[in-house]
Amino acid sequence: MIAANHSPLSHLAIRRLLRYRRVLTEAYKQGTATVFSHQIASMCGRNNAYGGSAQVRRDLMHLGCEGKPNSGYNIESVLSELETFLAPDITSTALIGVGHLGKALLRHFTQEHAGFSVVAAFDCDPEKIDRVISGCHIFSLDRFAIVAQEMNITQIMLAVPSSVSQQVVDQTSGCGVKSIVNFTSLPLSVPSGVFVENVDLIASVEVAAFLGKQIQLSRGAP
Amino acid sequence: MIAANHSPLSHLAIRRLLRYRRVLTEAYKQGTATVFSHQIASMCGRNNAYGGSAQVRRDLMHLGCEGKPNSGYNIESVLSELETFLAPDITSTALIGVGHLGKALLRHFTQEHAGFSVVAAFDCDPEKIDRVISGCHIFSLDRFAIVAQEMNITQIMLAVPSSVSQQVVDQTSGCGVKSIVNFTSLPLSVPSGVFVENVDLIASVEVAAFLGKQIQLSRGAP
Repeated sequence: MIAANHSPLSHLAIRRLLRYRRVLTEAYKQGTATVFSHQIASMCGRNNAYGGSAQVRRDLMHLGCEGKPNSGYNIESVLSELETFLAPDITSTALIGVGHLGKALLRHFTQEHAGFSVVAAFDCDPEKIDRVISGCHIFSLDRFAIVAQEMNITQIMLAVPSSVSQQVVDQTSGCGVKSIVNFTSLPLSVPSGVFVENVDLIASVEVAAFLGKQIQLSRGAP
Repeated sequence: MIAANHSPLSHLAIRRLLRYRRVLTEAYKQGTATVFSHQIASMCGRNNAYGGSAQVRRDLMHLGCEGKPNSGYNIESVLSELETFLAPDITSTALIGVGHLGKALLRHFTQEHAGFSVVAAFDCDPEKIDRVISGCHIFSLDRFAIVAQEMNITQIMLAVPSSVSQQVVDQTSGCGVKSIVNFTSLPLSVPSGVFVENVDLIASVEVAAFLGKQIQLSRGAP
């Protein structure tokens, strides 16, 4: 164990640490006790954003974790350092927009997660209000300010039609929301101090379609 | 108009061009004829990956498009250059896994898109096979090779449980699939020449939760 260096990390580094926590938690559950940096890199996939084994070693060094030449890293102790750094408190999250995508998100996120918990949902449609989906109560969006304060909601997942996304953000801002996961296709304008993560599903499929073709072209396939 | 420089672009640059096409198509539909680079940057949102107005100018210069000092870019001509570069052919895409998320994706992607079209869905559940959702026929996954050839499917969206994702990829590889949009939480091992775009929904929500808190800490809020 060496001294941890808790200087500010880049957004990309934070993404990597959260990813390490997920893959190591999974490996630990399956009974693995130690792991080499190249194995962690491989569990994280070939995506460049996660770099290779040298990147893993640098990131874990930042937390004060060092591997042993013969056995690699002790997973339990790495997870403990990751927990200390990433903080164990759970962010109470609300879904806004219980359409097709919103319903799927509610069902997708019902299991327990390390960093967040979906505690409520909101919609404008009277047919949906006061129903319960996957254990989540659906409230009227008009009651957002009151419910958000009662339930200490600090994050929203936005799955409303793109045409009303900015209006909904304006309506809910100032109610303690610190982060927004934006599933709509339009960029949002938010007060300073609010973090927005854009998850643009259409863009992802378009990018894959284009780059899949490009790989074939560069390989000279028909 | 200046000479276009069609040297290979980075993945990030391709993502930006696809994004420009989407926001400019939208602006054009709404009757806008010309646009300045800073307006394009603003339509793309504050996400760093899209850079500012200087980045927009560099990207469009790459395609041979130049703005005028007084009026900016002519949207119609930029869109035409983008179409030429990004190629207008549509990638036939199949969804594999018609669970909660898969159904939502089918409904989300029914409208027309510039670069891809969802033409079929696959599942193993006999209750789902031969049903139609949002105009999309659901086939048995066992018939993937035959249907993929008939329908010229070259892209899959993978929305199966993470535990079987690699098995499904192995089963469908060698059937002409060039790109995979991976909605599961695990990295995939694919043959060389296949592009994988990972859309890890849980990771996105975790990242937003953590970074939302961090912004508050760095601002000294309680």
